[in-house]
Amino acid sequence: MKSKISLITLGVSDFKKSLSFYRDGLGFGTHNYKESDEVVFFEMEGTWLSLFPKDKLAADAIVSSVGSGFSGITIAHNVGSKKEVNKIYDLAISVGAKSIKKPQDVNWGGYSGYFADPDGYLWEVAYNPFTDLT
Amino acid sequence: MKSKISLITLGVSDFKKSLSFYRDGLGFGTHNYKESDEVVFFEMEGTWLSLFPKDKLAADAIVSSVGSGFSGITIAHNVGSKKEVNKIYDLAISVGAKSIKKPQDVNWGGYSGYFADPDGYLWEVAYNPFTDLT
Repeated sequence: MKSKISLITLGVSDFKKSLSFYRDGLGFGTHNYKESDEVVFFEMEGTWLSLFPKDKLAADAIVSSVGSGFSGITIAHNVGSKKEVNKIYDLAISVGAKSIKKPQDVNWGGYSGYFADPDGYLWEVAYNPFTDLT
Repeated sequence: MKSKISLITLGVSDFKKSLSFYRDGLGFGTHNYKESDEVVFFEMEGTWLSLFPKDKLAADAIVSSVGSGFSGITIAHNVGSKKEVNKIYDLAISVGAKSIKKPQDVNWGGYSGYFADPDGYLWEVAYNPFTDLT
């Protein structure tokens, strides 16, 4: 099996709101998206991001859509400096993300903060001085 | 903000079991992993994958680790043919993944199946004849 994640899909409760957050707020570019679509793909470097109504995503996998609390998954966006962490974190908050953890030095030697998207999915904005994943 | 997800971290309940599933089962290569580590990074094409104990991941974000049911997120691994979907799906099942949805033609014109990792995180193995994300 090739070591590659092609796509991550977030099941969302309010599609238009989440689309606006990622497209207009964070500025991610969409791929062939039309206003009538009920799914959107964002063309990212590396693994793509997709949004799909949560109930339909669950139905596609034939699982119950019921779930609550911590998803257990975090998504990290790494940048090259502490200053950039602050900048991206502030941007996210300014376009409607919820503040979860303000950027700060962390015990593994880096610097990071967390925000939540409209559905509560956690994004970490991080500066990692040891491994460059920017 | 650059359109890039650097890393996805899965909060796991049994670190060694999940490490074995991804490293020895699916064959993903680790990055600087030592047996005493409590976190592992897999060097993937594009976005990397990481495993970290779920309670510690929640603590890092200062959120409650309590959560149940559907995480709301799916991870897709795309391949170039229906035959390859079957092959990867069978591999995953043979190394301990739980079968969620057997590979089949799906309404969007592709072919896919789902399996769950040791914590229930859903992976879709897909052949998409329209967009090549392999």
